[in-house]
Amino acid sequence: MIPFDGERLRRAMRAQNVDVVLAATRHNVRYLTGGYYLSFYARASRFGGGQYLSMVGIPAKDLSSAFYIGRQDGILNEQDYIDVFGPFWITNRHWLRRSPSMSAAAGETAAQVLRAQGYAGSTIAVESSFLPADAFEALRAGLPEASFVNATPILGELRAVKQPAELECLRQVDHVVAGAIHAVLSEGRPDQTTRQIATRVQRRIEEQGASFLYAFTNVGPGYLRAPSSAPWGRGRPLHLDAGAELDEYIADIARMGSIGTPPALAMDLFNASREAQKRVRGAVHAGLPCRDLWRIGTESVTSGRWGQYGRFLAHGLGMVSHEPPEVNEKNDRQLEASMVVSIETEYLHPDAGHIKIEDTVVVTPTGHEGLGDIEQDWCVVPDA
Amino acid sequence: MIPFDGERLRRAMRAQNVDVVLAATRHNVRYLTGGYYLSFYARASRFGGGQYLSMVGIPAKDLSSAFYIGRQDGILNEQDYIDVFGPFWITNRHWLRRSPSMSAAAGETAAQVLRAQGYAGSTIAVESSFLPADAFEALRAGLPEASFVNATPILGELRAVKQPAELECLRQVDHVVAGAIHAVLSEGRPDQTTRQIATRVQRRIEEQGASFLYAFTNVGPGYLRAPSSAPWGRGRPLHLDAGAELDEYIADIARMGSIGTPPALAMDLFNASREAQKRVRGAVHAGLPCRDLWRIGTESVTSGRWGQYGRFLAHGLGMVSHEPPEVNEKNDRQLEASMVVSIETEYLHPDAGHIKIEDTVVVTPTGHEGLGDIEQDWCVVPDA
Repeated sequence: MIPFDGERLRRAMRAQNVDVVLAATRHNVRYLTGGYYLSFYARASRFGGGQYLSMVGIPAKDLSSAFYIGRQDGILNEQDYIDVFGPFWITNRHWLRRSPSMSAAAGETAAQVLRAQGYAGSTIAVESSFLPADAFEALRAGLPEASFVNATPILGELRAVKQPAELECLRQVDHVVAGAIHAVLSEGRPDQTTRQIATRVQRRIEEQGASFLYAFTNVGPGYLRAPSSAPWGRGRPLHLDAGAELDEYIADIARMGSIGTPPALAMDLFNASREAQKRVRGAVHAGLPCRDLWRIGTESVTSGRWGQYGRFLAHGLGMVSHEPPEVNEKNDRQLEASMVVSIETEYLHPDAGHIKIEDTVVVTPTGHEGLGDIEQDWCVVPDA
Repeated sequence: MIPFDGERLRRAMRAQNVDVVLAATRHNVRYLTGGYYLSFYARASRFGGGQYLSMVGIPAKDLSSAFYIGRQDGILNEQDYIDVFGPFWITNRHWLRRSPSMSAAAGETAAQVLRAQGYAGSTIAVESSFLPADAFEALRAGLPEASFVNATPILGELRAVKQPAELECLRQVDHVVAGAIHAVLSEGRPDQTTRQIATRVQRRIEEQGASFLYAFTNVGPGYLRAPSSAPWGRGRPLHLDAGAELDEYIADIARMGSIGTPPALAMDLFNASREAQKRVRGAVHAGLPCRDLWRIGTESVTSGRWGQYGRFLAHGLGMVSHEPPEVNEKNDRQLEASMVVSIETEYLHPDAGHIKIEDTVVVTPTGHEGLGDIEQDWCVVPDA
């Protein structure tokens, strides 16, 4: 059983005149196999004189002739891992033995397989911002008649509409991150540095079984978001904007807090930010053109008393941050049900700092559902 | 102050007739800057339609004209992160603005900088198994007269001899991993699955502030090393072989244990494995040719009663697993003081399983020092 929407993939490939899509990033290999990636290399692919590289190739004409390329050499036997995972739909598997460059060997093998399948002179989409140069060289050398285009927009388009299991995973990781941020804010002390705060949010996320990705920490006034040796202090707004992944799906959430009562100005900006979130969310539904979402969001933060300090951003979110749908001034594509959008409404004010809320919603036929809608209030920590 | 051995880099570059080395992997950027990498992208570089890519370029003729390429675009301001890190030695910095592909933009910028510095027709070493295809294309398009070779052996050679701070970091992460493995073995129960055991070792490593990389788990008899739903059980040998990184430095350690008394055969193989470790370590010192280390190790595991089941592996270890020095049958390069070698002595026996010890040593002028020499005994867990 193909674990994704095969018709959607074919449509995206046809739109670019692509015969074969060849994926080689961890996230797209996991997506296309239905969740599998060799765990040994999942957190660090560098090894020996190069890096591990697995590949999934899928011809548009016949999805069932898809192939997988992995490593099987007596030291590391990937077939064992696939057996443990549960055999996935791609049964046409090709194994690399040890070689000076595993990535070049993968490219060479892909070329051989594609030639044997009759795709030597076809148009092949590769992830050109990711595929290692030597893998691409080997692929091109093995298929001098082929044309190559970028696979990233095609795979982004495929992944843009989420399946229920993907939404459930996003819901989980969103709750982990929103919960972790709230816990860390609640336990805050004035002498904690933003670096300590970032480390605390990392531990909280990891304790819940997700992988920490990053934390931005802004203590206002000022716009520095890099965790540093600066302490939180009393009565100062902190924005904590953290990212994590769970089974390759990313959460990206921002909350505000302060030790003791926050300045009235910061709270005004926060309320404006919440109001803008509400207006943007109120507009979201399947069928809304992305550029209309952009316009509504931009108007929401730039109108009203604090408008000159406002900034609006929205972006698709799933296995990649800022994946499709692309929310900008020009994109006339309509939101579809089960697309996921992260909404950022923020104010950068010289006397208050960087006041920000970020939350993720899934588009429904008639509106939206918040995926991490917990602990959204400004967290006021009692100043003991 | 250049934070690495500049003369060693120049020597490695000259040996390959290389004019400029251009690094773009996280580990080599960190190494060459003296520890800096943009934290936001350190755990996931994929973003939007591509990925973040920073670069360090160093000309052999004049190390002080080295340059750095990063991102600075109003949304993400890398200069802030560099200020927090503490400004590093490369003051010639070039900033990318938002672009459809950050990696292609980095390649294009590198080409412009190199042309301006007079290196348009030179030999440039790039990390060809890592550099994204579009970055390489942009670099090549901007420098059609240049020649390109692989930078990985040059940078591997540079990193092979460790500085005291690097050894201290390896010592720390080795202790974290050896300690985590021991704790997990000690708390073992017969009904724990190898997947649960792998997860427990991950948590232990993360609690200590290191990043988990992987865990191999073999319950003998049988050779499966992938964590699975199989329980440890009673009286069965478990090898737990785990990896982690701390500030980019990798630990790779294996220990054995069992719930209750292990089979006598497994213990015999374990003792043979320890004996082999001892013999190999006894031979290590600065000046020993790598091929002699390979021969001594191979003889140690393949001689004696269990020789037919023995396997020996040794490899350099630092920011990359299996980095130089390369320990194989042919390499006549001598070990140097402050090189780091991971030593694996193991037996794969059909009636016992995969019995293994792996430990890391640093080469000294007259011998070696174990970097993670704790809890090396077979861990017998009382069967409650």
